[in-house]
Amino acid sequence: MRRTTIREFAKASLYNPVLIEGLPGLGMVGKIAVNYMIKQLQARKFAELYSPHFPYHVVVNKRGGIRLLRAEIYYWKSQGRGCDLILITGDSQAQTIDGQYEVASSILDFAEKYEVKRIITIGGYRSEDETPGVFCASNSEDFFKDALRAGAKPTPPGSPIVGLAGLLPGLTAFRGMEGLCILGKTKGYLPDPEAAKSVLEVIVRLLGIPLELKGLDKEIEKAKRLEGNLRGIEATRALRSTKIRKEEERRTSYIS
Amino acid sequence: MRRTTIREFAKASLYNPVLIEGLPGLGMVGKIAVNYMIKQLQARKFAELYSPHFPYHVVVNKRGGIRLLRAEIYYWKSQGRGCDLILITGDSQAQTIDGQYEVASSILDFAEKYEVKRIITIGGYRSEDETPGVFCASNSEDFFKDALRAGAKPTPPGSPIVGLAGLLPGLTAFRGMEGLCILGKTKGYLPDPEAAKSVLEVIVRLLGIPLELKGLDKEIEKAKRLEGNLRGIEATRALRSTKIRKEEERRTSYIS
Amino acid sequence: MRRTTIREFAKASLYNPVLIEGLPGLGMVGKIAVNYMIKQLQARKFAELYSPHFPYHVVVNKRGGIRLLRAEIYYWKSQGRGCDLILITGDSQAQTIDGQYEVASSILDFAEKYEVKRIITIGGYRSEDETPGVFCASNSEDFFKDALRAGAKPTPPGSPIVGLAGLLPGLTAFRGMEGLCILGKTKGYLPDPEAAKSVLEVIVRLLGIPLELKGLDKEIEKAKRLEGNLRGIEATRALRSTKIRKEEERRTSYIS
Amino acid sequence: MRRTTIREFAKASLYNPVLIEGLPGLGMVGKIAVNYMIKQLQARKFAELYSPHFPYHVVVNKRGGIRLLRAEIYYWKSQGRGCDLILITGDSQAQTIDGQYEVASSILDFAEKYEVKRIITIGGYRSEDETPGVFCASNSEDFFKDALRAGAKPTPPGSPIVGLAGLLPGLTAFRGMEGLCILGKTKGYLPDPEAAKSVLEVIVRLLGIPLELKGLDKEIEKAKRLEGNLRGIEATRALRSTKIRKEEERRTSYIS
Repeated sequence: MRRTTIREFAKASLYNPVLIEGLPGLGMVGKIAVNYMIKQLQARKFAELYSPHFPYHVVVNKRGGIRLLRAEIYYWKSQGRGCDLILITGDSQAQTIDGQYEVASSILDFAEKYEVKRIITIGGYRSEDETPGVFCASNSEDFFKDALRAGAKPTPPGSPIVGLAGLLPGLTAFRGMEGLCILGKTKGYLPDPEAAKSVLEVIVRLLGIPLELKGLDKEIEKAKRLEGNLRGIEATRALRSTKIRKEEERRTSYIS
Repeated sequence: MRRTTIREFAKASLYNPVLIEGLPGLGMVGKIAVNYMIKQLQARKFAELYSPHFPYHVVVNKRGGIRLLRAEIYYWKSQGRGCDLILITGDSQAQTIDGQYEVASSILDFAEKYEVKRIITIGGYRSEDETPGVFCASNSEDFFKDALRAGAKPTPPGSPIVGLAGLLPGLTAFRGMEGLCILGKTKGYLPDPEAAKSVLEVIVRLLGIPLELKGLDKEIEKAKRLEGNLRGIEATRALRSTKIRKEEERRTSYIS
Repeated sequence: MRRTTIREFAKASLYNPVLIEGLPGLGMVGKIAVNYMIKQLQARKFAELYSPHFPYHVVVNKRGGIRLLRAEIYYWKSQGRGCDLILITGDSQAQTIDGQYEVASSILDFAEKYEVKRIITIGGYRSEDETPGVFCASNSEDFFKDALRAGAKPTPPGSPIVGLAGLLPGLTAFRGMEGLCILGKTKGYLPDPEAAKSVLEVIVRLLGIPLELKGLDKEIEKAKRLEGNLRGIEATRALRSTKIRKEEERRTSYIS
Repeated sequence: MRRTTIREFAKASLYNPVLIEGLPGLGMVGKIAVNYMIKQLQARKFAELYSPHFPYHVVVNKRGGIRLLRAEIYYWKSQGRGCDLILITGDSQAQTIDGQYEVASSILDFAEKYEVKRIITIGGYRSEDETPGVFCASNSEDFFKDALRAGAKPTPPGSPIVGLAGLLPGLTAFRGMEGLCILGKTKGYLPDPEAAKSVLEVIVRLLGIPLELKGLDKEIEKAKRLEGNLRGIEATRALRSTKIRKEEERRTSYIS
């Protein structure tokens, strides 16, 4: 494999599908959200994307199986409930600049074949402030207004949107498609299912799809416990280092 | 998008146009100068350049709009006042070595289509000395002499001219064109509209175009205030750290 | 040479050969194992692989001869004892991500020409624990079971297998081949012939080839002596730095 | 320019020419030697090599002229005194791994056109020991023996020869040519015309060309003075830092 390749192992007949992408990134917001959609909607995998710009290792699964890093492409037929979907998630982003552009272009080639008109990418928006929030940005005024109506706020100007979450909608401009980024506020250093849920609430309203979000609550609780524990550890550590500093000050104060 | 691409959305009929490039670089001299020309001359955009060697993110503008990083290409018809112009500015330089050469080559392909004979690039020349000054360098003796007559001085030998500002005129040699770098003296760490103005004074004389430069004076004042403030902050910081050092010396002098 | 190239200087007529790869990596397990097979089985070289992604230097041999870095490809005809083999070892792995994929793809092109159905890669599995052990991972359930029967254990899930040892079996999925990694437990920082021997014991049982392994015992002894010496040096150093620390503590305790 | 390109501006009719390359590297040995040959033999430039893998800047010369980084290709017709020569020197080596292979391959394409059979590259061999010495390494036993007879010694085994000096003779193996590296012993951190002279003494004997070497003696003297001065500066600095250390020891000895 010398270039990015999409391997299709089934043909889907989709009507006016919306493509939604969520790869690893800030707070894993995109990956958690799209994975949840795939599971909850019982979407079906019909293609995989491989790239010589992904990291050069294989992963080992539970039963000693190995596989290359990849992105996975699923579809879901709405049968009248909202719209048909193509869902993309995966293991990794491309590791080089032109690799990022190549992967994005391959996904758009695939989208064109399925006559996709609208593409949504999901990502995280780094913020230390605790209140949840969902931001949107688009190259299409119509799509942008739809997202605002669905509850998202405009992304603050000046923020770069990095990786596939930005490039994919950025490149739609050359394909006659509309692109939309939906970003969940997150501190970003831990997987953040709460931010993913906020994003999905917007998407449910935006697309009218029958997606139940309660299933994420357990993961959210778990993430909060984890964060709490880490905070506890950090607090203890901070306390201890304050003590050490004070002790040192006490000792060194004998010198001067 | 897998290679550097220029997207034209209008056709211009230009007579013997001179191409002027100013992308981000030292002191933003080139970008400020070309942006000012575009605004002041009311030049019209007719093409955009995209490259998989630009950084892999999109920028978000004031109303939640997104776009890829790009260079923008404008034209201006002189109608007898000087000569027709093609003006190029943009967000970023290519991020890899061969990307730099690829972007430069794409611009020259475009220039050839419009039968450009002369190319000017604008950049900064780093110097701590405060007196303004404009340097020029060229692969054509004629073009060089024209620049000297217009008030520029020869660039001191040995200085490398980095990025598009250097590659573009360097590569003209293979296209039967003449290339000229015009470099404004700048400290380089802050946007420097004063250096941009000095460069434009030379260009106005060189090309005989009707460009009013007063409009830059406000920006120059603003930049000076900003620099003054920063200097104030730095001075305070320096003062404070001198105090701390003295205090430390006083304390440690008890030891030895 | 602008792309990875395999130069064949002899034609081999092989029956259903298994390809075994061992390039430099963790503990040099793969390279030691395949080199030993080549020598012991008196395999014959019939091709060499060169790549512009290998480091850009030549090596100088004992008599002032020079050569590019390369991988070497040997064959061995079983004549009824086990199965025919293609053996690959070499100087270096590719130095870039897409170079790794390119080299792997070139090897698979070559394997296809010889109608290879099964590919084994040998590597190290980093572990501080001293007991020997051999792990396997595969994209084929059949091949995996064969390896388990031959004495390997399943690779712990989650471990990435880096470089050609991982990519090569990972990419077999697209060629209708079966791929297997066999990894010898090793601390990894020194060449580890003992780990190589453990791996070869599994391979002998797996393929039924007549490979005598006693020849490795001398190298194993030598490696153990070397490790013992290094440990001695380290212990001395550790002892000395403990002394210094104590001395320092004694001195500084006068201060506070 | 999107790939390495050789621009020829004259045709030379050469008889069985030997190609000699000396680009910047350790102690500038190769560049100094080939530059000296060009000047002394009054060789004529007939081609230039440009590459998108050279650094992306232009250099400015004494009269404000600019040019891209490049390699220059000269020829010299022996007219019975030794053999015809193609001489290559330049500003820089390629900055990427595959760029190094691409530049080397372009030079070999050019060499093939002129039916070159033997290629010599000149470089430095790093050594702290002061006695001069010249090492050789080759992929051809004949060529190697010729170099030994001309006074070179075999390069110590295991040394990598980095960059074009190694790749070019390494790659001759695929072109039916013979390649030879000639390396002058040098400390390597300063331009070393003495090492270049030692190398040229070997080359004069090897090829029987009428090259007077006295012209290098002035440069050698200059280099020795420069080294002497630097050593003086370093000695002073070392002395001073010894004083400071002693002073510090004296002071701190009051503490414990």
